Amino acid sequence: MAELISSVDVVDVRFPTSRELDGSDAMNPEPDYSATYVTVRTSDGAEGFGLAFTIGRGNEIEAAAVEALAPLVTGLPVNDVLADLGAFSRRLTGEGQLRWLGPHKGVIHMAAGAVVNAVWDLYARREGKPVWELLSGMSPEQLVALVDFRYLRDALTPEEALDILTAAEPGRAERRARLLADGYPAYTTTPGWLGYTDDKLVRLSREAVAEGFTQIKLKVGTDPEADLRRVRLAREAVGPGVRIAVDANQAWGVEQAIEWLAPLAPFEPYWIEEPTSPDDILGHAAIRRAVAPVKVATGEHCHNQVMFKQLLQAGAIDILQLDAARVAGVTENVAILLLAAKFGVPVCPHAGGVGLCEMVQHLAMFDYVAVSGSTEDRVIEYVDHLHGHFTDPVTLRAGRYLAPRAPGLSAEMHPASIARYRYPDGPAWSEES
Amino acid sequence: MAELISSVDVVDVRFPTSRELDGSDAMNPEPDYSATYVTVRTSDGAEGFGLAFTIGRGNEIEAAAVEALAPLVTGLPVNDVLADLGAFSRRLTGEGQLRWLGPHKGVIHMAAGAVVNAVWDLYARREGKPVWELLSGMSPEQLVALVDFRYLRDALTPEEALDILTAAEPGRAERRARLLADGYPAYTTTPGWLGYTDDKLVRLSREAVAEGFTQIKLKVGTDPEADLRRVRLAREAVGPGVRIAVDANQAWGVEQAIEWLAPLAPFEPYWIEEPTSPDDILGHAAIRRAVAPVKVATGEHCHNQVMFKQLLQAGAIDILQLDAARVAGVTENVAILLLAAKFGVPVCPHAGGVGLCEMVQHLAMFDYVAVSGSTEDRVIEYVDHLHGHFTDPVTLRAGRYLAPRAPGLSAEMHPASIARYRYPDGPAWSEES
Repeated sequence: MAELISSVDVVDVRFPTSRELDGSDAMNPEPDYSATYVTVRTSDGAEGFGLAFTIGRGNEIEAAAVEALAPLVTGLPVNDVLADLGAFSRRLTGEGQLRWLGPHKGVIHMAAGAVVNAVWDLYARREGKPVWELLSGMSPEQLVALVDFRYLRDALTPEEALDILTAAEPGRAERRARLLADGYPAYTTTPGWLGYTDDKLVRLSREAVAEGFTQIKLKVGTDPEADLRRVRLAREAVGPGVRIAVDANQAWGVEQAIEWLAPLAPFEPYWIEEPTSPDDILGHAAIRRAVAPVKVATGEHCHNQVMFKQLLQAGAIDILQLDAARVAGVTENVAILLLAAKFGVPVCPHAGGVGLCEMVQHLAMFDYVAVSGSTEDRVIEYVDHLHGHFTDPVTLRAGRYLAPRAPGLSAEMHPASIARYRYPDGPAWSEES
Repeated sequence: MAELISSVDVVDVRFPTSRELDGSDAMNPEPDYSATYVTVRTSDGAEGFGLAFTIGRGNEIEAAAVEALAPLVTGLPVNDVLADLGAFSRRLTGEGQLRWLGPHKGVIHMAAGAVVNAVWDLYARREGKPVWELLSGMSPEQLVALVDFRYLRDALTPEEALDILTAAEPGRAERRARLLADGYPAYTTTPGWLGYTDDKLVRLSREAVAEGFTQIKLKVGTDPEADLRRVRLAREAVGPGVRIAVDANQAWGVEQAIEWLAPLAPFEPYWIEEPTSPDDILGHAAIRRAVAPVKVATGEHCHNQVMFKQLLQAGAIDILQLDAARVAGVTENVAILLLAAKFGVPVCPHAGGVGLCEMVQHLAMFDYVAVSGSTEDRVIEYVDHLHGHFTDPVTLRAGRYLAPRAPGLSAEMHPASIARYRYPDGPAWSEES
């Protein structure tokens, strides 16, 4: 009998990170990093894991959205799903009634992403490959077939996408070998959380450089004087050769962003991340024109490929920060990587949170091997939180992500972690609060 | 003792409209029009009603989002809330953890809208006025204080908003009197659902003209030949003097929209609504440049004021179709009306669904009395569905909405309707399916 998807299960997992102010920034002062953790099972006993990332309250809403999608998935023949993952994604994101809740944004879209990613994990495990390698082994035609071009054709046609992938094909083997040998460049956000003291900022900045990082990131946006002081301290700590990105987490209006950034210029911030509303494409473009040579970066809250398309069309960004869990999973992120390649904009993925480093490294590595073919000016964010809860945690060496070798998307969590941090009944919540 | 908000309750109410194909369009073939129905109660026994509109599945996710917002509201002193409804809205839309689920979009933002609208309903009942009249009696300063300018200042400053409202102040009394006498112009979507036969389309189009409507709307976007036939039939039925809008419900890409519309030109469509993704600001601008003199209209899925700001900045729309229940309620819609006035773009609200006509008429009438001061080229959508479930249903006469006189936002449903259509346990669902 054909193997069927037999269940889609979801667990609300929350880590009480607000108790330490890890992850604090201008708009998210006390996050409890959380995962809407999805397990897809098949009638043959295979499993795939994915997750949506939230920062605490509302994770139960995300879980309800996964529950609403589950009936669209259970009972499908696994081979049919894997043979046309583009159609599978459209099935989830285009469902006639659920679509109204987005469309293609927010709670329902992130839930689709968690399910889609769990299916990619299942697929890669079946093939015995990490997802980056699975993607990098697909033909240009197979990759193009994943993309929903309905709203993209004015910026990227299927023919152009095919050209990009075909041009990168000859170098795949060489880049794969280099990736396996050297890994992929990273930067670290660990030193720069807003809730940290100056001493901790300086100490962690120095440690980052000592560990081999060539870029760090600082949160800014609540107090101009503190920002100036912190960026100056960081610059003194790391010296002139290390890039310092700053991240306002949407704190400013357009004109305010431009004014606020001016005094930081002497300390040469490399990029300003999320200077304003993530929806404000034209605002980002205006900021970019005003603050050059500081680069403008955004994407972690960019809710779908249509928004990324416009950020590129409008010349609004220097750096595209895709996220593994904000859009509809690996499938939509393939489209976003192709858009970035078409416009020649480097992708520096957003990570941190819960499992975002684990998942997003696959996309950046696929981009290197089979899409853009470059790691120049490309770095994956790294935050040293919560990796121990994953069965295949990221490995960094000398400021670089080592390519994962285990089959899958690296999103599987340890059962003991799930049991302990399950909300609200896990002991981490029921015993300590 | 001070009056407190004592509870925020939510009910999942669904109408089985898919059984009749009422509401069918290119992207939403079989909707079950639904409401996430919110009741806010106070310690003194006062009540306010609001709702989020969905089209069936997923209404339970919306309800979960309202449940997540409820703890932010219960226990607040009513007078404090009503004295600063701008702060109240920001409390809901900016909450440190829930904000991640948007920000300002999709499920969590619509839930905020339902709660905000319920509080406006409570406020207007307390004042003994319909919401349109409550808003029209507020000073320009009070109205400006409702607006969150953080992401708007590059397009609309508080001073500009104040100027718009102050300029309209002298004519308020005269326009109020005219509104009470003559009502507000409407157009009807009743004839044009995709699921209807040609005969039904022609019959309903003629009836609409006979009833006094000067504009009708047809759904298009699934079959070019059928669209051509249907638009031709409608034009023959209504004659040259009646406007025919067409609505693609996001079915097309940018270039496809332009190509698809060309053959319809001889039948003079007045506007094309939602030609492509609601997120595609630049796409709408490109379509508008190509299809003039056909006007471009969108807004029912425009998820917040930052998106409306950009649609206006980019010259992407001729018609702004705000929705009562997609954004964060009356409060955010005041900002959107001010943006439209600043850019001189007429507002023609989206309605239909469940209770959208009832709620949105208040916004259009407020716009006429106190913001734009005009009804020229402005019409509120009208669909003759489901009004009987509301305690203060809309009243139309000769193709115009009569101004509601009962206190509140007109969003209250009959208890018997709620009981019957409550999902999944109401008899409409438990007995007939």
